[in-house]
Amino acid sequence: MLTKIDHIGIAVRTLEEALPFYTETLGLRCIDVRDVPQQGVKVAFIPIGDTELELLEPLGPDTPVGKFIENQGPGLHHVCFDTPEVAGQLTRLKECGMRMLDEVPKEGAVGMIGFMHPKSGLGVLWEFSTRFPGMPPSGER
Amino acid sequence: MLTKIDHIGIAVRTLEEALPFYTETLGLRCIDVRDVPQQGVKVAFIPIGDTELELLEPLGPDTPVGKFIENQGPGLHHVCFDTPEVAGQLTRLKECGMRMLDEVPKEGAVGMIGFMHPKSGLGVLWEFSTRFPGMPPSGER
Repeated sequence: MLTKIDHIGIAVRTLEEALPFYTETLGLRCIDVRDVPQQGVKVAFIPIGDTELELLEPLGPDTPVGKFIENQGPGLHHVCFDTPEVAGQLTRLKECGMRMLDEVPKEGAVGMIGFMHPKSGLGVLWEFSTRFPGMPPSGER
Repeated sequence: MLTKIDHIGIAVRTLEEALPFYTETLGLRCIDVRDVPQQGVKVAFIPIGDTELELLEPLGPDTPVGKFIENQGPGLHHVCFDTPEVAGQLTRLKECGMRMLDEVPKEGAVGMIGFMHPKSGLGVLWEFSTRFPGMPPSGER
């Protein structure tokens, strides 16, 4: 079961360049900035409605987001669904014949996560996430 | 003021190919399919949480979404913010120095809308929308 959009991931060259656009120009609020070394990014969290924008600054050129920006420039990178049981979700998707980048969940910034290959996601990099126990849901709070 | 994400726009080659992935594989629900000739697309509306996925099938190769798919294939196309007053929002963004594709609102599928040029949106095509009076907000209902 997919509950809602946990977040929209947006590749940015630097948070220093990107944050003023989101906070000053668009008037949104950044609630946290944190390194997520296992994903090779520094992330800024911007809640809106019941979801969040996650701005992703690559920690180096050889990271997935660094290569994405080198290939096609900054922009929309992935969309993450919230699900109460990410492990079962990944298993079911594989059983449906989907090509999974992660067949079992791995640790993300705020929960256990897994990605589907964009070739199976009709050109979209879809992520699936179950937040850690005690971690509040994404969105305005 | 930006209230929430009204929808995420996703370019697809055909709805016939894309809808089974969203409804059968992901288990989401399509609540409406409709031609939006002024945008050159046929749109399928898929609510999730307080927002919606909008699947955009181009009505022809010379439409904006048709050209997008020809250039980079199907995938994430734009993100739309809900705002109570789209006209003022577009004016303020222009006054902030943003390059606007629409300086005044135009009629969309379910509201008055305007787009910002991706060069000003840090590589993202941002849309701003105020739903028509009486039109329910996007999302599960």
